[in-house]
Amino acid sequence: MSRFSDRFSEPWDPAFLALNSSISFDYRLAPYDIEQSLAHARMLARCSIIEERDLRALEQGLEQIRTEIDEDRFAVAPDDEDIHMAIERRLTEIIGPVGGKIHTARSRNDQVATDLAMFVRAHSLRAHDGILALMQVLVDRAEEHRDWPMPGYTHLQRAQPVYLSHHLLAYFWKLRRDLQRFNFCMNATEDLPLGAGALAGVNFDTSRMSIAQDLSFGAIAENSIDAVSNRDFVLDYLGAAATCATHLSQLGAEIVLWSSEEFGFCEVSDAFASGSSIMPQKKNPDAAELLRAKAPRIAGHLVALHGVLHGLPLTYNKDLQEDKEHLFDAVDTLELCLAAAAGMVGTLAFDRERMAAAAADDFQGATDVADLLVKSGVPFREAHGIVAKLVRAAVEGGVALGAVTAGELAQIAPQLDEREYRAILADGAWLESKVSEGGTASSRIADQIAQARHVLEEIAA
Amino acid sequence: MSRFSDRFSEPWDPAFLALNSSISFDYRLAPYDIEQSLAHARMLARCSIIEERDLRALEQGLEQIRTEIDEDRFAVAPDDEDIHMAIERRLTEIIGPVGGKIHTARSRNDQVATDLAMFVRAHSLRAHDGILALMQVLVDRAEEHRDWPMPGYTHLQRAQPVYLSHHLLAYFWKLRRDLQRFNFCMNATEDLPLGAGALAGVNFDTSRMSIAQDLSFGAIAENSIDAVSNRDFVLDYLGAAATCATHLSQLGAEIVLWSSEEFGFCEVSDAFASGSSIMPQKKNPDAAELLRAKAPRIAGHLVALHGVLHGLPLTYNKDLQEDKEHLFDAVDTLELCLAAAAGMVGTLAFDRERMAAAAADDFQGATDVADLLVKSGVPFREAHGIVAKLVRAAVEGGVALGAVTAGELAQIAPQLDEREYRAILADGAWLESKVSEGGTASSRIADQIAQARHVLEEIAA
Amino acid sequence: MSRFSDRFSEPWDPAFLALNSSISFDYRLAPYDIEQSLAHARMLARCSIIEERDLRALEQGLEQIRTEIDEDRFAVAPDDEDIHMAIERRLTEIIGPVGGKIHTARSRNDQVATDLAMFVRAHSLRAHDGILALMQVLVDRAEEHRDWPMPGYTHLQRAQPVYLSHHLLAYFWKLRRDLQRFNFCMNATEDLPLGAGALAGVNFDTSRMSIAQDLSFGAIAENSIDAVSNRDFVLDYLGAAATCATHLSQLGAEIVLWSSEEFGFCEVSDAFASGSSIMPQKKNPDAAELLRAKAPRIAGHLVALHGVLHGLPLTYNKDLQEDKEHLFDAVDTLELCLAAAAGMVGTLAFDRERMAAAAADDFQGATDVADLLVKSGVPFREAHGIVAKLVRAAVEGGVALGAVTAGELAQIAPQLDEREYRAILADGAWLESKVSEGGTASSRIADQIAQARHVLEEIAA
Amino acid sequence: MSRFSDRFSEPWDPAFLALNSSISFDYRLAPYDIEQSLAHARMLARCSIIEERDLRALEQGLEQIRTEIDEDRFAVAPDDEDIHMAIERRLTEIIGPVGGKIHTARSRNDQVATDLAMFVRAHSLRAHDGILALMQVLVDRAEEHRDWPMPGYTHLQRAQPVYLSHHLLAYFWKLRRDLQRFNFCMNATEDLPLGAGALAGVNFDTSRMSIAQDLSFGAIAENSIDAVSNRDFVLDYLGAAATCATHLSQLGAEIVLWSSEEFGFCEVSDAFASGSSIMPQKKNPDAAELLRAKAPRIAGHLVALHGVLHGLPLTYNKDLQEDKEHLFDAVDTLELCLAAAAGMVGTLAFDRERMAAAAADDFQGATDVADLLVKSGVPFREAHGIVAKLVRAAVEGGVALGAVTAGELAQIAPQLDEREYRAILADGAWLESKVSEGGTASSRIADQIAQARHVLEEIAA
Repeated sequence: MSRFSDRFSEPWDPAFLALNSSISFDYRLAPYDIEQSLAHARMLARCSIIEERDLRALEQGLEQIRTEIDEDRFAVAPDDEDIHMAIERRLTEIIGPVGGKIHTARSRNDQVATDLAMFVRAHSLRAHDGILALMQVLVDRAEEHRDWPMPGYTHLQRAQPVYLSHHLLAYFWKLRRDLQRFNFCMNATEDLPLGAGALAGVNFDTSRMSIAQDLSFGAIAENSIDAVSNRDFVLDYLGAAATCATHLSQLGAEIVLWSSEEFGFCEVSDAFASGSSIMPQKKNPDAAELLRAKAPRIAGHLVALHGVLHGLPLTYNKDLQEDKEHLFDAVDTLELCLAAAAGMVGTLAFDRERMAAAAADDFQGATDVADLLVKSGVPFREAHGIVAKLVRAAVEGGVALGAVTAGELAQIAPQLDEREYRAILADGAWLESKVSEGGTASSRIADQIAQARHVLEEIAA
Repeated sequence: MSRFSDRFSEPWDPAFLALNSSISFDYRLAPYDIEQSLAHARMLARCSIIEERDLRALEQGLEQIRTEIDEDRFAVAPDDEDIHMAIERRLTEIIGPVGGKIHTARSRNDQVATDLAMFVRAHSLRAHDGILALMQVLVDRAEEHRDWPMPGYTHLQRAQPVYLSHHLLAYFWKLRRDLQRFNFCMNATEDLPLGAGALAGVNFDTSRMSIAQDLSFGAIAENSIDAVSNRDFVLDYLGAAATCATHLSQLGAEIVLWSSEEFGFCEVSDAFASGSSIMPQKKNPDAAELLRAKAPRIAGHLVALHGVLHGLPLTYNKDLQEDKEHLFDAVDTLELCLAAAAGMVGTLAFDRERMAAAAADDFQGATDVADLLVKSGVPFREAHGIVAKLVRAAVEGGVALGAVTAGELAQIAPQLDEREYRAILADGAWLESKVSEGGTASSRIADQIAQARHVLEEIAA
Repeated sequence: MSRFSDRFSEPWDPAFLALNSSISFDYRLAPYDIEQSLAHARMLARCSIIEERDLRALEQGLEQIRTEIDEDRFAVAPDDEDIHMAIERRLTEIIGPVGGKIHTARSRNDQVATDLAMFVRAHSLRAHDGILALMQVLVDRAEEHRDWPMPGYTHLQRAQPVYLSHHLLAYFWKLRRDLQRFNFCMNATEDLPLGAGALAGVNFDTSRMSIAQDLSFGAIAENSIDAVSNRDFVLDYLGAAATCATHLSQLGAEIVLWSSEEFGFCEVSDAFASGSSIMPQKKNPDAAELLRAKAPRIAGHLVALHGVLHGLPLTYNKDLQEDKEHLFDAVDTLELCLAAAAGMVGTLAFDRERMAAAAADDFQGATDVADLLVKSGVPFREAHGIVAKLVRAAVEGGVALGAVTAGELAQIAPQLDEREYRAILADGAWLESKVSEGGTASSRIADQIAQARHVLEEIAA
Repeated sequence: MSRFSDRFSEPWDPAFLALNSSISFDYRLAPYDIEQSLAHARMLARCSIIEERDLRALEQGLEQIRTEIDEDRFAVAPDDEDIHMAIERRLTEIIGPVGGKIHTARSRNDQVATDLAMFVRAHSLRAHDGILALMQVLVDRAEEHRDWPMPGYTHLQRAQPVYLSHHLLAYFWKLRRDLQRFNFCMNATEDLPLGAGALAGVNFDTSRMSIAQDLSFGAIAENSIDAVSNRDFVLDYLGAAATCATHLSQLGAEIVLWSSEEFGFCEVSDAFASGSSIMPQKKNPDAAELLRAKAPRIAGHLVALHGVLHGLPLTYNKDLQEDKEHLFDAVDTLELCLAAAAGMVGTLAFDRERMAAAAADDFQGATDVADLLVKSGVPFREAHGIVAKLVRAAVEGGVALGAVTAGELAQIAPQLDEREYRAILADGAWLESKVSEGGTASSRIADQIAQARHVLEEIAA
């Protein structure tokens, strides 16, 4: 019976059973649970808390269960309220009462915290790898589109032209920060909870440090009460995932926008698009929309777990069971989004002509005209005012900025040399003048790509 | 092929397939989808858009699919990206190309909005019924414990004693407001989206009103663009569910508290409790803890859906696919919590002696002493100050409030008659003096129970 | 001293003072608090709990305080921890110890709940009026642009053309649902908390119903414990505000999009736009961006208050002080957003030509071609497939859908009459064929505008 | 005029003005803005973009403004839409048109990102210091209560006794993780945004690295588009603050609980408590309640900023203005909570007798009895079952666990030696047997305190 206890005389209410049981979702902790139990058993034997032959029996039973799980043959019994009890129940079926020794000097409280830390560490690494793959795609696509001009936007208004490579690389650096967040998550799972017992430590002189080494934890949790109540590392993962997903939502939103007929900057490949049930002409950038849509889901999980932990007295409370589904869904969502993003960005087809035409809109050179004035000694704020008048004249005249008449130019901006003015508004000049570090001039882009490749190499090393 | 379209030349990427497919969760819309399709087909025939024999074929095919689903024999094909396409695909398998006529004058956009409105309506009704059942339990338990004194708390400090019935009924009135919220949700699904087409209406002179009547909608959505983009009713459901779950979390938290050895006011029945894997003596009020823990989950779904809808341009966007999992999980969570709450409250055992002993702590009569002074003409604020001094004397003397010496009494509160003072602090008087409407005096509790029963009868009628 | 109590012997810690004091924000409850106190005093006199001359003194003092507040002369004292104590302190300064009688048969717990209910009711009405004003603007702008074609979008891809009036009216109906939500909020504040005392009722036979009538509450809260712990109406307001703000965020997002050079559908008036500090040519649709940006703020307040209430035991806890700032900021944000939205939409300039040109993209007629086939007996799903092939031929040929060759047409869609095909793809036909109820055909738009005006008249009545 | 631009012909709408203006809250960035402008001016002169005498004028003007702000004499003009424009406006008033040169090679987009990064860095350091102070208090209080037994709880049920020092130190380790999070935040602000211009870089060969050194940034942002759109560091701060506040909410909730008459484990000092407006006997642990209540507020800010950033296209959008109020309120809330927590915990009075009495409840020794069986070779799971039967016998007999009869003992647990059984359940033995690393035995507590002091020394070093 799964309730461990002969204290109880009544069967469980079905609604309670449904509410209380976690095996439908914590089943996926099984590989970690087995690995942990093996390490725990080895330590018990090493410390002479169990005998060598007990260890051999436990190892044999646990390995058999691992195989059953790997081969999808492991049967959950109706009374298995969670994966930990299911494994222990099966262990005893296989090797007899000695199976009950596995829970010596351990409680489910430290056991589940340990499984969860192992899970977070493993999936922080997977997130790390998924991010890295997307960063690689972004550098490659940037390299391919190194000198493709497009408008840069502020307030979704054309502001100053940039190279597409520059825009794509902006995501590279956002993702690099995401990598650092997942590195933090991995560090946050370095302290082994196991050995904290229910909350107070255990009645055996165990060696927690040796289990830590066995399971590749860097240290042991210093305080048993903290160890069983700590879910910080789950919050850390959810926070890192929410920020990463928010970045992906921005990328997705831009691809949706650029895929519109009005922008026409890119087309999602058929492998990432779908049609309409009613409109035969439609090609919808569904993958990009879903990238956009998934970020609030992960942020929702994050705020929900904060809610669960809010005001919760120490140490273990059943409320902590609510950590898992939020984490698992966030993990699945993020890993899928990263894979889809890499695939979609890797196969996006950009339209050089449409982008170049938009980049050629010469109002985007207005700052450059102002800076021309600045270089002749006019304070920037005044220069800004003068050029704003030129812009107004052009807008009212319905012409390009470079096409204001010589008369208007002389009247509004007598400081300007007409030839210089016309020249600076001729196509292309504005991009190459952005020579500051991190700017869009070609030489700076080249530096940036080199720097990005260097970052990737360092991580790979 | 599920992509409807011969426009596309490449197969889908597996990551996109996983991200895009919704059939793993929208499968549960199947019954609504079939009911809707039947009504749609009848309308098409009524309006002579399809022929009678087409209708008969469609009806036969749809009924067969319904049976397959009811009997869990319906097979999802790898290319079925959602339940709507799966049903149409199967329909065509069963009745041939005429199955393709079901999608005449309809788009998935209005179809899914309609299924979802039907789902929300059905589950608002289930939430309503679950709430009602819990309200019934609360009145019954209040009746049983009509005159059991217990401390009332503010700031978790004993403040003034109340009857347990009064405390239990507080939840009755909170839940009545929850009922009203779910009634609002049902109203919010009254306008039929079907017939809006993809977004602009359809090329056929359909009769939307007749479908509305057929499916028990009260009206039709007045604007096709709004109809396909509207998910307000899902927000309404999630909002109502979050508030109800928050009430249940307060109830759960109080039961956890009262079940502690320190309070000792109640014991959860074995049918709603569990033991410890390591501590044989433990009996944990798991059901109450889980009630407490589930509210943030639903609030998380609510904020996530707000996030999805935030800044989304009209009309349908794939992002809207993110409405379903939030809704479905909230529905399952709330319905389970309501059932568990009713069962747990219905079987809670209260400890009359422990509660009465706590209620007898006579510092809880301090307000009554102040009011005694008020009745003799002392302004309340002054009376409050005088009694505070008495309290301090008692606390410093380490005695009950009723046990301050006659000397202290005469010095601090010369206005008070000693006999009256001692009398008012004798057990019980304080509860019965709370005679104001809605107060805890027995007669008021009797009124309140009568009023509560009247509310239940009105709802049942 | 503001701590009411001679129980305490130590001064407050400055950090606690800063954390605990609410007067910096609850000051804005002052008008409601005075109105409430006047009604409370009248009831006390009516029930002979205080004397007539006490009432006259209290009325005179409270009126004087009201004047001081109105004229911004009311001085907060350092020890006034909240507005309720500040007013009572000042009352006693003005009229002497009789001022202390105002707190007879009342606690701050029921007092603050009452103020807050009055505040929510007043601001639900203001939200209602702000929504109504925006609805009026939308109908007027729809009327002005009744027959301006524009593309309708799904997945931000051009799908089927609609009239601009139709698109604008979609927001009208969303806002009408928001009105219903604020009506619900007003109902949610109908039950008077006052008279519940600290939690248990009061020691006086007061007449709560008479105060309810005096303050325009519809009823009294039936249970004193519920009355002081109930903040449902604040959640209701925040929920309604979050949904309304989400609608406004969608409107804002569309205006941002349409204001881009790429769409070019509209221009925000100078009164709602701003420039750039560096780029003289920029005109940014700031008001629209801020509409988009404010929704998460209100949703954040909603989830935060759910968090505060989560697991909170009855009755009053200091945590409830956290209701006010969330509410106040949501009120200010929403009222400002509604005013800005009405002003901005009322002065938006639409570009008929740009919209018409986009609407003329004839791929948007593909569904209509499919329906032509349907009318000749081809099942819709088949018709969809045929037209998809035509679309592919056009896309690959780089021509409009109406420009596929006669040969291609005959080969792909032999069922189609070429003349009918060309005709249906000629400009305009597609809009007028959407004749279903709620569709975009002119006659349906006329119906819809009439219906919208009818709704406004009914509300005004 | 604050709108920079002569492009505009209409005055601003008052609703837009109110919505758009940020000066009421971004005023607090002023010190950072001045520091930044000074560094920027120095770089401009160093790179010969402005002349030395310009620099001297700018420095003099900026220093004067700094003084005006420090002395609270700085006057905001009606047209100052934000603090950046207010300072530049004032600068030009003081030093004439040369003031306009300060905005050379800079945009508000990179300017505001830089101010904000400086603000986050400064307040991450303050959070760090506030956490450190609280950690110090916790170690000191732990040292003082090193050997005070109390019950340890799981599910709020007494589980196994621990020392109060052990419980207090659990928070020490949680806070140490919070420190690491704020260290991460400081690292997250290491890359200087300034010099990115509006989005594309600037038209001058500036030296961003030299500004970085001047302002103590560790590096420059590598990509100008990322630099102006990056708000990750604000998310990082809010995430760290939310987790820290969640820890404090748990601490607050425990103090509320322990302050109840039922627990009676501690009393909050008068400096952190308040009274009741109506109940003279009340002493409410308000500071602890507010600690509990504030966590959802910060989590609300976090989810709101995720909402704002969700789906936002690059680069700067006005939506980003919504970062500041969330951040500022979170900063104020967290810093106040940390100060209040340190003060409250530092002055808490614990009740040794009440805690010891609760710790002596011998059912908490049940695990120890089970382990006694384990040591004699009974598998743990079996031992657990045997002791559960003993517990049931004791509960049904209404006696302590150590008081089951010799007959019951012999029948249920023949393996147990009666003398050993009685001995192990005698007071105190259970605490000292928890000898595992991180456990509650005195020697382990001594290690833990030493380790904690070591951590504090390392941080101080």
